[in-house]
Amino acid sequence: MDVRAALSDLISIGDRRFIPHLAVDCAILGFHAGELKVLLLRWHGSERWSLPGGFVEKNEPLDLAAERVLRERTGLDEIYLHQFHAFGGTDRHEDDLVPSFRSLGIEVPLDHWLVNRIVSVGYVALVDFAKATPKPDALAAECRWWDMHERPPLLFDHDEIVTRALESVRVQLDTAPIAASLLPDTFAMPELLRLYQTVLGRPLDRRNFQRRILELGLVERVPENGKRAGRVGRPGHLYRWVGKDAG
Amino acid sequence: MDVRAALSDLISIGDRRFIPHLAVDCAILGFHAGELKVLLLRWHGSERWSLPGGFVEKNEPLDLAAERVLRERTGLDEIYLHQFHAFGGTDRHEDDLVPSFRSLGIEVPLDHWLVNRIVSVGYVALVDFAKATPKPDALAAECRWWDMHERPPLLFDHDEIVTRALESVRVQLDTAPIAASLLPDTFAMPELLRLYQTVLGRPLDRRNFQRRILELGLVERVPENGKRAGRVGRPGHLYRWVGKDAG
Repeated sequence: MDVRAALSDLISIGDRRFIPHLAVDCAILGFHAGELKVLLLRWHGSERWSLPGGFVEKNEPLDLAAERVLRERTGLDEIYLHQFHAFGGTDRHEDDLVPSFRSLGIEVPLDHWLVNRIVSVGYVALVDFAKATPKPDALAAECRWWDMHERPPLLFDHDEIVTRALESVRVQLDTAPIAASLLPDTFAMPELLRLYQTVLGRPLDRRNFQRRILELGLVERVPENGKRAGRVGRPGHLYRWVGKDAG
Repeated sequence: MDVRAALSDLISIGDRRFIPHLAVDCAILGFHAGELKVLLLRWHGSERWSLPGGFVEKNEPLDLAAERVLRERTGLDEIYLHQFHAFGGTDRHEDDLVPSFRSLGIEVPLDHWLVNRIVSVGYVALVDFAKATPKPDALAAECRWWDMHERPPLLFDHDEIVTRALESVRVQLDTAPIAASLLPDTFAMPELLRLYQTVLGRPLDRRNFQRRILELGLVERVPENGKRAGRVGRPGHLYRWVGKDAG
């Protein structure tokens, strides 16, 4: 089905398929070359960018709707995906999309729920940057990674969603398998340190960091050449996550 | 308007007033005599209990919908209210309510969204037990406090909602003004200790607790008889929250 047919269907019979007024938005984060990245979509007929999102099917659990958006935009599944907040202000509406629809020759009735109030449940996903293949959805002309700190101003309230997504990642950095989702299966200690510094947005003392991380028991040294894995870290040593297969 | 007229209206024209398929549920917690309490409703024509909740008006922010439910059920506002999770499984539907409607002589069409899938956003409220006056809503025959650990099994997935509400309170106990919402304006140190032990569900060492709480700078001793407030705590001393008017 082409883009215009898909959008026309969404307008005319979308509320048979979806729960009206409800959406998910995904802050999909990746880590590459010491920078935190966020996956953004640019809309047809617009220079504005937003987070990937989607509506929730009538018989689709909310979490699976978020997984679907993630899979459709990145080709990835079975990765760290965490619901963090529902955004329910009455100023949340998507009439900024009207010009995008119009640029495709499609008029949306202005009282249609699609361009009126939407309550959106925010999810944050952490993906291995190297494995994700960004793909735009029907409404988007472009889908690509942006450096978190160089991203353009976002449509709707998506800047607030990104800010709160980052807060939720910071709170859970040591307790959830967050860092493991953002690094390759084996890594050097300086890479892990850079990841923590980037996510937390502040410098950390290298030696204290290493001691604390090893004490937490989250990572272990990869044994080399049959030698027993030690706990002393030198920059050249590789580490891996405890309990995660080095697939 | 009487109960039956209100319910008939909800069924026939509810989707003009509310966003269909969307609700808020509130875990309203209080603290009294060393016990954590939760406010529950019993439905008309049923022996089953649930959390108070409500639908979201078309032009009502989600947070204000939760505040409205809280105010209507307790007479309180301007208290600690925190959104913690959206519950969006496809097994969430409220057809357990059909007998309650029927007991009032009202038939709900089985394809009506009211008794079908509902996505509910969970809020937790912490209230001063002594100031709240429980009031049932139109669908409920009864509204009262239950000891958290002696509560009956709840309707729908409300036991899961209570469990996750408690988890979110535990995580934030030291950072949000949670304890302040559950105690009177001045209190003795053993009361605060009991509150922490009850919320955390485990015993705490009295001396370590007192030292840590004072170090956090959350509470201070109330000055007595013109004497300067000290930091040494004896059981008889009263404390108050730093930065909160002892109104």
